[in-house]
Amino acid sequence: MTTRVAVLGATGYGGVELVRLLRDHPAVELAYLSSESYAGQRMCEVYPQLRGVDTALRALDAAEVAAECEVALMALPAGKSLEVVPALREAGVRVIDVSPDFRLRDEAQYRRWYQRDHTCAELLAEAVPGLPEWYRDDIAAAELVAAPGCYTTAAVLALAPLLAEKVILPEGIVVDGKSGVSGAGRTSLKLPFHYPEANEDIAAYALGGHRHLPEMIQGLADLGECRPKMTFVPHLTPMTRGILLTIYASLGEGADEQSLREAMLRYYAEEPFVEVLPAGRWPHTKWTAGTNLCFLGVAVDESAGRAIVLSAIDNLGKGMAGQMVQCLNLMLNVEETTGLAARAAYP
Amino acid sequence: MTTRVAVLGATGYGGVELVRLLRDHPAVELAYLSSESYAGQRMCEVYPQLRGVDTALRALDAAEVAAECEVALMALPAGKSLEVVPALREAGVRVIDVSPDFRLRDEAQYRRWYQRDHTCAELLAEAVPGLPEWYRDDIAAAELVAAPGCYTTAAVLALAPLLAEKVILPEGIVVDGKSGVSGAGRTSLKLPFHYPEANEDIAAYALGGHRHLPEMIQGLADLGECRPKMTFVPHLTPMTRGILLTIYASLGEGADEQSLREAMLRYYAEEPFVEVLPAGRWPHTKWTAGTNLCFLGVAVDESAGRAIVLSAIDNLGKGMAGQMVQCLNLMLNVEETTGLAARAAYP
Amino acid sequence: MTTRVAVLGATGYGGVELVRLLRDHPAVELAYLSSESYAGQRMCEVYPQLRGVDTALRALDAAEVAAECEVALMALPAGKSLEVVPALREAGVRVIDVSPDFRLRDEAQYRRWYQRDHTCAELLAEAVPGLPEWYRDDIAAAELVAAPGCYTTAAVLALAPLLAEKVILPEGIVVDGKSGVSGAGRTSLKLPFHYPEANEDIAAYALGGHRHLPEMIQGLADLGECRPKMTFVPHLTPMTRGILLTIYASLGEGADEQSLREAMLRYYAEEPFVEVLPAGRWPHTKWTAGTNLCFLGVAVDESAGRAIVLSAIDNLGKGMAGQMVQCLNLMLNVEETTGLAARAAYP
Amino acid sequence: MTTRVAVLGATGYGGVELVRLLRDHPAVELAYLSSESYAGQRMCEVYPQLRGVDTALRALDAAEVAAECEVALMALPAGKSLEVVPALREAGVRVIDVSPDFRLRDEAQYRRWYQRDHTCAELLAEAVPGLPEWYRDDIAAAELVAAPGCYTTAAVLALAPLLAEKVILPEGIVVDGKSGVSGAGRTSLKLPFHYPEANEDIAAYALGGHRHLPEMIQGLADLGECRPKMTFVPHLTPMTRGILLTIYASLGEGADEQSLREAMLRYYAEEPFVEVLPAGRWPHTKWTAGTNLCFLGVAVDESAGRAIVLSAIDNLGKGMAGQMVQCLNLMLNVEETTGLAARAAYP
Repeated sequence: MTTRVAVLGATGYGGVELVRLLRDHPAVELAYLSSESYAGQRMCEVYPQLRGVDTALRALDAAEVAAECEVALMALPAGKSLEVVPALREAGVRVIDVSPDFRLRDEAQYRRWYQRDHTCAELLAEAVPGLPEWYRDDIAAAELVAAPGCYTTAAVLALAPLLAEKVILPEGIVVDGKSGVSGAGRTSLKLPFHYPEANEDIAAYALGGHRHLPEMIQGLADLGECRPKMTFVPHLTPMTRGILLTIYASLGEGADEQSLREAMLRYYAEEPFVEVLPAGRWPHTKWTAGTNLCFLGVAVDESAGRAIVLSAIDNLGKGMAGQMVQCLNLMLNVEETTGLAARAAYP
Repeated sequence: MTTRVAVLGATGYGGVELVRLLRDHPAVELAYLSSESYAGQRMCEVYPQLRGVDTALRALDAAEVAAECEVALMALPAGKSLEVVPALREAGVRVIDVSPDFRLRDEAQYRRWYQRDHTCAELLAEAVPGLPEWYRDDIAAAELVAAPGCYTTAAVLALAPLLAEKVILPEGIVVDGKSGVSGAGRTSLKLPFHYPEANEDIAAYALGGHRHLPEMIQGLADLGECRPKMTFVPHLTPMTRGILLTIYASLGEGADEQSLREAMLRYYAEEPFVEVLPAGRWPHTKWTAGTNLCFLGVAVDESAGRAIVLSAIDNLGKGMAGQMVQCLNLMLNVEETTGLAARAAYP
Repeated sequence: MTTRVAVLGATGYGGVELVRLLRDHPAVELAYLSSESYAGQRMCEVYPQLRGVDTALRALDAAEVAAECEVALMALPAGKSLEVVPALREAGVRVIDVSPDFRLRDEAQYRRWYQRDHTCAELLAEAVPGLPEWYRDDIAAAELVAAPGCYTTAAVLALAPLLAEKVILPEGIVVDGKSGVSGAGRTSLKLPFHYPEANEDIAAYALGGHRHLPEMIQGLADLGECRPKMTFVPHLTPMTRGILLTIYASLGEGADEQSLREAMLRYYAEEPFVEVLPAGRWPHTKWTAGTNLCFLGVAVDESAGRAIVLSAIDNLGKGMAGQMVQCLNLMLNVEETTGLAARAAYP
Repeated sequence: MTTRVAVLGATGYGGVELVRLLRDHPAVELAYLSSESYAGQRMCEVYPQLRGVDTALRALDAAEVAAECEVALMALPAGKSLEVVPALREAGVRVIDVSPDFRLRDEAQYRRWYQRDHTCAELLAEAVPGLPEWYRDDIAAAELVAAPGCYTTAAVLALAPLLAEKVILPEGIVVDGKSGVSGAGRTSLKLPFHYPEANEDIAAYALGGHRHLPEMIQGLADLGECRPKMTFVPHLTPMTRGILLTIYASLGEGADEQSLREAMLRYYAEEPFVEVLPAGRWPHTKWTAGTNLCFLGVAVDESAGRAIVLSAIDNLGKGMAGQMVQCLNLMLNVEETTGLAARAAYP
């Protein structure tokens, strides 16, 4: 028996990756694909590489989704979920949303960072963070999952064990992020993402403060039981997919490289999608392309008493569509790795 | 019941792709992985992204392969297969070889293009071209399959139907090839493939005649029952994977764009891995990345009476590891698409 | 004494390259820079790398240009020149225009390919093709120069000597073009040029017929005194700058590789910006980046009786801003290489 | 009157950039070009884009250099300068060396980081750091200049003013470096720099400690009169040229973004090659390609009391050949910007 699933925003980069992953998913029927730009066309007309996916694209209609689907995977621009989720929830549709709309518990924070009132703040309390490694049981039972997205997933997976085990200090963390350009999405064509501008260039952005910082802090405060103080500087990197975070933190009392690695392994040794690398190896984003994997590496600069933690994911995989499918598997009570077993094509 | 399979040359680009594809193949046990450079290490140590593949790599020993495996997939440099295949065949191991060593039926041609004597020419007669779309039954029964490799696969898939149906003329064909750099392999580090040289550059190479040309011609002569005359100019293109061929040919009498497309569809409409695009669409190499798909497009320059045929594959997919797995499936009498269902991650 | 020069469209890719080249030009004063998008800002605010160029950008006003400048270099989108050139010409401003508006002598052709009436067709007769290698004296005396642009420059430089010397036949020419993405310009942000789409991909475009084809044909008919029949297929290539044309043509009676090379050298041996490569070498686009150079290479496929000609330029250099500056130097009667001596940074 | 100059290591990436810059330098005659790999060929045969530079390449012979040249620009691999510089100095040849061999004053440090004894440590005392912004007069009079190279130049230019003015603290500095692949040089073809490996990937390297760290620390200790404590993590970035450093430091007492920018401007406002960006702008490596420019940007994370400093150069420009030419100009007592005026081609 399959579950009828909707992908809302099916022609954006997150959406098309969801469709790719769910195409052959044995427990899922792709019953509803929404796209404002391509409504009326079939998915495989828009994306010929998705040969065989001939579902018609429809302009999003919450009532139709509610009538036809049991779960909605939402990959819409920030703010759109506010308009759609209440109706879906009222109709009993379970939701996995990768927009920021249900991530921050504090609606004042949402207003500050997204310049918009939260119009259904009553739903915030029921939203479960879509991070299976830390909220597995909650997700399985959830009606509304707020997937944390790319930067936050990479940061929280790397730092939560270290903070929880107190092998690093919560003050003075620096997160230097490098992201591929697909993180900017597909619909808004902006000059910095124009090929001739982005190619052969690297630059920092959002120096005044990035929207994902409060989400990282909230996630780490919850899991590490601390008040993290962090500086986060993202960089646009000339590649399509991949996020690498280079994280700098002060070592906790008595901590060394081995205790950091052990702290990570304590949480992740059995995780199907998190790989803690052995001493002397550090992650490459290329290893994650098209997958739900997260690679973590640890080094210590002893002379400075500083931990260096490296975290690599595919921003559209574990940072977006992969994490949503992993949550979906939990919610459907099927094997957590279903549809996510592929390894990165190399090179 | 699974078949014990060897991948010889497992750490080259073709080999690692074979391992990736066969990792979860339900009919295959990856019993033997050879690597001269990394012998003694486990595959997942060399390639951490292949998490879980902890088979030890061994220096190639034909007797061991024969003792432990029923089928050998060979992705070794040109010339190496000559040393290994006779022993494997004698021991009854079925072989799928992607080197050029068993492609040309005429050993004089082999000597001319590969500057080497063919030391087991008696095996040439039994070698079946590894092109399932045209040799399906022969492959299923084959003991030795010579996989045609990247450029030839892309060219033969595009041109064979058009020549067979006589909608283009066999004289005066021009094949302008564009290949990603992974086509150069991994082991021989040469200056043209050094990142700073290959990046932001495109150039033609092998203007004096490319080794794959006689293989294309042999393949097309067989399938099109003609004597094709072709000019082939390959170009090194700044991307990792992908081959695009832009093929120019004189239209046959009365032929037009529609008759060309119909000729292709006559052969490929039911093919699981060949997609003939509708009018107005032409293939992108990006659609093929990591897959066994071939996309074909057709246009006609009416004023010049010339057909323009576009053929895109992943040089490591349908152009190498994918075609080998497709052949393997035929030989094992399992569903031909097993292990090959994935679509390209986009973008 | 310097000449007051306007750059119209100064913040597009052609415009900013013009400003870069003319910044230190000893015979030129950059008196007027127009930009609709950035009017009111100084050039070095928009482009910090043009440190020191603090000229204010202005919305284009033909009367102001006429009042303040003696020469106008125009790098505006197709159609805009029709609005501006008549006023400039009436005021006696000499014009070098890189748009297609004054390239085609036949206004019916212009209407067909650009879907627009030519509103000042009376000026077409005085327009001189901006190809110094072939129209040096005409350019020196010209009031209106129509710079041929990227594809046409690369094609005409390669083919004109061969047609003029009859070492290739004018029928059956195929031009397979590979262009970097900057050829698409900066202002119109379209999906195919979005980094994640263009990166790691190559594809043909404009299969139905490219606007530059009639311009190539006109240019070659004039210089080669023949009626060329050509197929032209351009490809979008994942690099920022550079055009490589791979041209296939039937050899003329008795012609061989040497006679082709000699035909080229007859015209270009003394040219400061055209380099005919010796036997066994073929051009790389990387050699041309940021320069006004054109590299030409020749090979012959003897078995097919076919010439293969390779032509590489920087689409924004010799294909746009460089050719305009070269024309300007001729018009100002200064050394033709002034401001254009730089060689490509390597790699 | 021109000075006879040798470029030693003329066919490496630093060498070919030196030749490009010095080709038209009015005060310089390129009298001697050495290359072990290409000895016997002319420079323009090896690099056709350097059309006109037909100087023959010679295997390095110090006696010949001494006999024929007054200044030697050395771009050889680490360790080679030890063999050559003593003879050159003895013969009175002035030397600008971009290898690490004369950078560290402490030969024990050299031994530790370069695993080699310093065989002419007596020359270390006379070596002047090749950083014109800070050692202008010393360089003008120097006999031996040790050019600091790419990472150190970018770091010292950014941090020296801030440490000297005490607007940041010397403890707890983190330098997160992103480098294009050309920083790896041309001669040693290693797997990480093979196009298919480096493309579409970002990864950290040298986590155990990078050789350039002690050079940065020495430079900053001298100029900032402090004992800096730094963590340095370099990353290989998929682009050919460019270095971006993202530097994190604790704010000094009372310091804010404005005081940081003012500290920089106090030293650099009149510098021809250092641009301190205004508030709200941060450097792109693309702005520096092929130039001798350094762009510096400043931001402050107030909640964390942390300065974020961004420094971008071209690793082969200001980070190598450009800085050497700038030093040469000082030594020759010509205008410091001679041969270095070009701006980056954009995009």
